Amino acid sequence: MKLLDTTMLKIVPQDAAYRKEARERLDQLTMPYWALGRLMDLAIDLAGMTRSMSPPVERRIVITMAADHGVVAEGVSKYPQEVTAQMVYNFLRGGAGINACAKVSSADVLVVNMGVATEITGVPERERYRSRPIGPGTANMAKGPAMSRDDAIRSIETGIEIALELGPSFDLFATGDMGIGNTTPSSAIIASFTGVPVAEVTGRGTGIDEKQFEHKVSVIERILRVNRPAPGDALDVLSKVGGFEIGGIAGLVLGVASLQKPVLVDGLISTAGAMIANALCPVANDYLIAGHRSVERGHGVALRHLNKMPLLDLDLRLGEGTGAVLAMPLVEASVRILTEMATFEEAAVSTADK
Amino acid sequence: MKLLDTTMLKIVPQDAAYRKEARERLDQLTMPYWALGRLMDLAIDLAGMTRSMSPPVERRIVITMAADHGVVAEGVSKYPQEVTAQMVYNFLRGGAGINACAKVSSADVLVVNMGVATEITGVPERERYRSRPIGPGTANMAKGPAMSRDDAIRSIETGIEIALELGPSFDLFATGDMGIGNTTPSSAIIASFTGVPVAEVTGRGTGIDEKQFEHKVSVIERILRVNRPAPGDALDVLSKVGGFEIGGIAGLVLGVASLQKPVLVDGLISTAGAMIANALCPVANDYLIAGHRSVERGHGVALRHLNKMPLLDLDLRLGEGTGAVLAMPLVEASVRILTEMATFEEAAVSTADK
Repeated sequence: MKLLDTTMLKIVPQDAAYRKEARERLDQLTMPYWALGRLMDLAIDLAGMTRSMSPPVERRIVITMAADHGVVAEGVSKYPQEVTAQMVYNFLRGGAGINACAKVSSADVLVVNMGVATEITGVPERERYRSRPIGPGTANMAKGPAMSRDDAIRSIETGIEIALELGPSFDLFATGDMGIGNTTPSSAIIASFTGVPVAEVTGRGTGIDEKQFEHKVSVIERILRVNRPAPGDALDVLSKVGGFEIGGIAGLVLGVASLQKPVLVDGLISTAGAMIANALCPVANDYLIAGHRSVERGHGVALRHLNKMPLLDLDLRLGEGTGAVLAMPLVEASVRILTEMATFEEAAVSTADK
Repeated sequence: MKLLDTTMLKIVPQDAAYRKEARERLDQLTMPYWALGRLMDLAIDLAGMTRSMSPPVERRIVITMAADHGVVAEGVSKYPQEVTAQMVYNFLRGGAGINACAKVSSADVLVVNMGVATEITGVPERERYRSRPIGPGTANMAKGPAMSRDDAIRSIETGIEIALELGPSFDLFATGDMGIGNTTPSSAIIASFTGVPVAEVTGRGTGIDEKQFEHKVSVIERILRVNRPAPGDALDVLSKVGGFEIGGIAGLVLGVASLQKPVLVDGLISTAGAMIANALCPVANDYLIAGHRSVERGHGVALRHLNKMPLLDLDLRLGEGTGAVLAMPLVEASVRILTEMATFEEAAVSTADK
């Protein structure tokens, strides 16, 4: 708990003076008032996060955290559990969606085994992989807590450690996830924190039909009845209805926030992790950028809870970090607007009639 | 009219066989069904446009067309007319919004003088600039037609010529505009084609207040009363209530479509140009991608008329091509998804239970 506590102590709000300076510069740029809209809002945020009028966002990485979920025993997913490990290999060979999308944004992909049930073999610990399993998947949360409170803390601290390790080498971070069955804990977390009925925060995950959807809702309702997570205690929520990769993502958000760097959050599962981080340390929210809104129903609810407007809305529902890395060029655009555009004075362009 | 006619004859629909082949490959990729949503729809379109399972989108350019509008005499804009020319210089020096945004997408910026009222001097005709003025700005359309029917054709054919000239050097095109007052002809064009009341397709342009907005609506209503553009005759609409850069953009869309390459359309003004192209040759629509939805009210109406869903929605209202170039990385992502992701079989990943 020491690392978690010391990290949270380091997280302070965005810098108001840099926000003000950025706003003043943006006001003078050669365009009608606020004509680049949300990219200008984002430029202010980036200046406030990084304490810089030239926020660094060049060195980019997505951290895709993988883990398994005992709750798959309840039949909540169409895919067999072994797919989690198979996809880890796919990430490392470069054949997955996250690899294709990360290339567009010149982002590295780091895969972290936070607790995959199938043994991952023959993968050397190197630049693109870390093995930090908390356990061989969580317990079946339909029957009791997904993990112990100690394991919940360990999963978060693992995410923090990874953020701190990567800190000197990267400017812009993105979260990602892989874990068969992990929309179930994510919806349970969102229902716990928001009080929104389970049916309204539960989606089709990997593409289940109406009957399977009703079953999934009833499983999540049972999960909440059996565990009674306390929304005022984020560690209670994570341990009872979370997942190892979700804890890792929460830690990553906290760690990056403590470094005063921006972190792009992906879809439903990543946002559930960000909600854990937010509940532990609300000011961490200042360093969080919502990459996209997924088609998963609960995601919009979670983003509203965090008071975040997503940058993209493209009917994605893959996870892995895809929606977060795809937003990286927009972050770069915000910085280039702030740093490269001329002011009316510099360009000798006439201003509007007052 | 010969070039316009021969160009339109060359425009044929997307290729159905390539669309089918792309869909079949996408279906087999290592992700839940259609989990990358609209990027997968776009990948099918790109395969259909380019007749390729590896659609080229690497060499990118935005063509920012500038012209002036006699209708500014009616007080429809907050900015003086000289800003159009001043912004042309700003584009060429690299200090404008389009320069910052194009860099993110590694796109070249070509500025075309389609009819700026102020003389543009000291700019050599070179890689990044073309001087092709149809005239020194349009006539005041509140008092009669903006231009002759011949000039309307010349403006379109100029856009076609530029597309054909750039064709061998570029894969992915974007349209852009600059012209003080040009939201007024754009709203008039959109009202003409859609029949939607002027007040519902008129926006704040460069940021006018309520009183100025009401004035702008009344000017556009007068424009339509005075000119009575015939929505079934696109050249009539363009000549009576259009602009030289809007005709140029229409020609660019037709020219790129005739090359079977994708063209990203920017905001209100570009989309008004695309509507002219669409009215002349509906099948050109097959090559058009909507980059974003602007905050200008008429833009959503225009996009629905063209049956296009925008890729981005970021409260932009700058024009210049900014919203179109910002969508280029998403086009690249679509291609990388199609070409770089592994199939379930290639990656030895288990498929879903049927």
